[in-house]
Amino acid sequence: MLLLHPPISPWIQRSHDGCRISLLSERVDLDSVLLRSTADNEEHLLTMHYAGRHAELHRWEAFLPWDGGNALTLYAFKVLVDDGQAWLAADGQHQHLPPEDKHFRLHPTQTPPSWVREQVFYQIFPDRFHQALPTVDRSGERLPGPEGQMVVQPQWTDPVDPTNAANSFYGGDLPGITAKLDYLQRELGVTALYLNPIFASSSNHKYDTDDYDHVDEHFGGDAALATLSAALHGRGMRLVLDGVINHTGVNHRWFKQAQADPNSPYRSFYLFDPQGYHFGWKGFNSLPVLDFSSAELCQQIYAGPDAVLRRWLQAPYNIDGWRLDVVHMLGEGSGASNNAHHLREIRRAVKQENAEAYVMGEHFSEATRWLQGDQEDGAMNYYGFANPVRAWLAGQDVAYHPVKLSTTAFDAWMTRAQAAIPFDNQLAQLNLLDSHDTARFFTLLGEDSARMQLAATLLFTRPGVPCIYYGDEIGPAGGPDPDCRRPFIWDRETWNLPLFEHFQSLTKLRQQRGEWRHGAVQTLGCGADWLVYARYTDWEASIIAVNRGSFPALVTVPVWQLPVSVKNWHSPAGLPFKLSDGHLSMELPPVGSALLLSC
Amino acid sequence: MLLLHPPISPWIQRSHDGCRISLLSERVDLDSVLLRSTADNEEHLLTMHYAGRHAELHRWEAFLPWDGGNALTLYAFKVLVDDGQAWLAADGQHQHLPPEDKHFRLHPTQTPPSWVREQVFYQIFPDRFHQALPTVDRSGERLPGPEGQMVVQPQWTDPVDPTNAANSFYGGDLPGITAKLDYLQRELGVTALYLNPIFASSSNHKYDTDDYDHVDEHFGGDAALATLSAALHGRGMRLVLDGVINHTGVNHRWFKQAQADPNSPYRSFYLFDPQGYHFGWKGFNSLPVLDFSSAELCQQIYAGPDAVLRRWLQAPYNIDGWRLDVVHMLGEGSGASNNAHHLREIRRAVKQENAEAYVMGEHFSEATRWLQGDQEDGAMNYYGFANPVRAWLAGQDVAYHPVKLSTTAFDAWMTRAQAAIPFDNQLAQLNLLDSHDTARFFTLLGEDSARMQLAATLLFTRPGVPCIYYGDEIGPAGGPDPDCRRPFIWDRETWNLPLFEHFQSLTKLRQQRGEWRHGAVQTLGCGADWLVYARYTDWEASIIAVNRGSFPALVTVPVWQLPVSVKNWHSPAGLPFKLSDGHLSMELPPVGSALLLSC
Repeated sequence: MLLLHPPISPWIQRSHDGCRISLLSERVDLDSVLLRSTADNEEHLLTMHYAGRHAELHRWEAFLPWDGGNALTLYAFKVLVDDGQAWLAADGQHQHLPPEDKHFRLHPTQTPPSWVREQVFYQIFPDRFHQALPTVDRSGERLPGPEGQMVVQPQWTDPVDPTNAANSFYGGDLPGITAKLDYLQRELGVTALYLNPIFASSSNHKYDTDDYDHVDEHFGGDAALATLSAALHGRGMRLVLDGVINHTGVNHRWFKQAQADPNSPYRSFYLFDPQGYHFGWKGFNSLPVLDFSSAELCQQIYAGPDAVLRRWLQAPYNIDGWRLDVVHMLGEGSGASNNAHHLREIRRAVKQENAEAYVMGEHFSEATRWLQGDQEDGAMNYYGFANPVRAWLAGQDVAYHPVKLSTTAFDAWMTRAQAAIPFDNQLAQLNLLDSHDTARFFTLLGEDSARMQLAATLLFTRPGVPCIYYGDEIGPAGGPDPDCRRPFIWDRETWNLPLFEHFQSLTKLRQQRGEWRHGAVQTLGCGADWLVYARYTDWEASIIAVNRGSFPALVTVPVWQLPVSVKNWHSPAGLPFKLSDGHLSMELPPVGSALLLSC
Repeated sequence: MLLLHPPISPWIQRSHDGCRISLLSERVDLDSVLLRSTADNEEHLLTMHYAGRHAELHRWEAFLPWDGGNALTLYAFKVLVDDGQAWLAADGQHQHLPPEDKHFRLHPTQTPPSWVREQVFYQIFPDRFHQALPTVDRSGERLPGPEGQMVVQPQWTDPVDPTNAANSFYGGDLPGITAKLDYLQRELGVTALYLNPIFASSSNHKYDTDDYDHVDEHFGGDAALATLSAALHGRGMRLVLDGVINHTGVNHRWFKQAQADPNSPYRSFYLFDPQGYHFGWKGFNSLPVLDFSSAELCQQIYAGPDAVLRRWLQAPYNIDGWRLDVVHMLGEGSGASNNAHHLREIRRAVKQENAEAYVMGEHFSEATRWLQGDQEDGAMNYYGFANPVRAWLAGQDVAYHPVKLSTTAFDAWMTRAQAAIPFDNQLAQLNLLDSHDTARFFTLLGEDSARMQLAATLLFTRPGVPCIYYGDEIGPAGGPDPDCRRPFIWDRETWNLPLFEHFQSLTKLRQQRGEWRHGAVQTLGCGADWLVYARYTDWEASIIAVNRGSFPALVTVPVWQLPVSVKNWHSPAGLPFKLSDGHLSMELPPVGSALLLSC
């Protein structure tokens, strides 16, 4: 018996003191329909009232007051039927009371800014996208510090040299990005940028910040950022920067003074052991870890009026949010102690500066804990998107170990990761296939264009905001860091045009289809190698079918289960399909995807 | 392929800076065996080293340092094999990385006192167990307060009158308990008592405390408690009291002064709305909720040197722990705000007074959150024991709604509830079949003695401490509160002697079998109506087989999977069984259980 609770309006209607909640059911002959909640950690069972038919389903509703004793309001549905019971929780149906970590969850006040879910993000590693400023000859220059390597300035088309991973400068810069906004916006359909770090630092990646107060001069300095930001905002685009606040570089003045003088006011910004050695991030001495037990450091980073995380949100830079680097490791002492407290304060500071700013965390592992409303709006979604997709399509996990993932397990993995966080935060997750920290996904797929297109379809249609790692749209290869940071090749002769056109069609559809941006998601069917799911609002719907198998798959799925009345379905690719008695049948191409859109 | 990690010594060996961890595997031809942990919230993969054979299995080991950045150290096992991977987490095997809430978990410092898991508890509702003091005629007396009902004094064998639920006094008292310690200890095999509230209060249940400073005079006053405690300790027995600190009664002097005078120093102990009305627990005006935002209240309840929760741990009362009533609802304002903070402080205060005291919470719903080491040692285990057993054997849930639970789901429910908390806390859970707040389990089973015996076998052999609700051993009937609080009938003519003898044999075996008290648990097999599991240490083992079906069940289970070398198995009941090639076969009686013990 189907039970359904799409966690969006009109099935959730928020108000000041609570939420009107709807449950949809296949059957009407239910003995009792109860809304189970846990205000003040005590079980409450509210009777839900029958509210009529809804498409092919029946609807019950109840008003759920916010839980005054907890930050989140949790709920699940308990149905008495046929002398037994059926439960619905965020991860699906259960025979009995589901655990509370599987309950639906709402934060009454802390929700991500709604603009986030409407975007198509593009991640740029600034040294490698496009150069507009003249090349400055840096021959003979060394990076500062005792181990400072020679500056290397390869030609744009030279391969990346792993022996000069951090000290090879290809010359990309912010004016180069500004010059390519027409490409990004008009050709590709991107609406928001996330830039890898741009503050002054001697490395090419700039994760070792020397100075949070200024944009690196090689990238064009502060003025270039103001110009880029104005150009983006003039086009209605958004800008998110990389905040590297877990550690600094060794050339930051705070660290230099702290290291030189135990009585320096900056000594407390870092932790030194009794022998006077500092702690480096993951043991790297060149990345001294900041110690957030220092109240003055908290002032400098987030709390004070000119704090790093505040000032770039202000004019003339007006950035729209932060991606916070390895932010799960941030804390007091040399590690993550009291992390949640500082993340809550960081959120508070950022939102105080701009209530609509996006707070997004980098978490290579599970980010569930940071996504409960009180800390981050979203995360780089390795855990709930990139990793299951990589396992299902590339047969590898995050550590590049082989893994065999059934399609059922693939669907369950994504569903479970989603279920653990409020749906508003699911929609603000930054979904990605790869990044500057992973091998290019195209490479992991053995440069199989069909699989890459399939992956892109998942990227644009799963809940969350798609983020294209620069160049993925034209199909470049690249192994693990630093090889995944090759310069963008602007010579269109070299592009994988079918892939590029696939990305173009996806960005266009995402702009047209509200259900891709903020619709509910529902699995409709699953085979050994194929998965069919729907995204929908209360008036529009898409069916997305993906097949990783080498053979066509004939699939039939129960579209009557969708709580939206679709008059006609339409295949943009002109694929044949058949609708009969609430079921939809179609043949999926081998290693490919199919879309059906309501119209 | 079997993977196994019994979360006890010698497979876990704690030290100051971390833990030596062993994984057991059926196969030896593994490509890589990795211990995955999350120190400072970052993924760490430690290579485990082969350490030789262990019974029929192979053992790998690694040293896991404590996670300095988090209270708990989490881990799981990742095995690369056959070009794919297999994971082991606390809830079993996975195809891929399990979520962190399923990881094994250890608290480096906060573990329950080890005496707890060695006990057999007995819960007594003092007005209904045994009377030793002479009856005081209270005819014509009313309970205090505007709605005060007449005191009723029924005869011991009179039925419980639901219209006089709180004001019927049968006359049981603490000297009555003291007088029956021979029965409890020598005949039944009980080693610890948990008493429902005994502090001064006008009701029979005393959940509406009038005075935390004194034992109710009708129970014999303070001296009777000192005598009982001394008698128990003289026998090596333990005593746990009910701490009702979420609310008081309306006759508590704090409340009377707070209500009478808005300027009273006690006004802040309660929350009054702008109209001057107080908040009652779950809307009951007679139970005004304490407001823990008052620092002075915190002093009185737990923080100050003479705080309620401290003083009864001191001489001459020397109680061994607290059962904390509805403690998930305790907090600031009228609800549970900041609950975790106060629970941590309560733990700190209790352990400061007596590091070996037992902190046990009452949670009718899921208690996972309170059982992560930093708050409670254990909970009244409705969620992970009483409720699944009730669903499986009685077909009812905690709200008395019908539920159909498959045996697979029964096993998974208990396993999942266990997996969410450290194993040390699993062993300190207070397992129960029923209590003063539920119908008698015997009644829920339709007074089926065979099912009640089966339930008792589960009570004594699942991880956790068994707690017998007074009288359950002799099979009394009783519906929901107040009918479940009938006086204990001492006339042995009326006893269900086979049930009593079954309880006697279980208490005796529990004393003999260390694996029942502190062994690992492992499911060996499961059918439609039967479940077989083992409890074991590294040198002794028990196999427990339960069958709820009306027909005998022939079962065969793989005992070779146990990591303990058992020379001979022995059936105390003399049931036939067969061991062949690592598999054990036996016929389970209908609606019954079978035990096999290593010898």
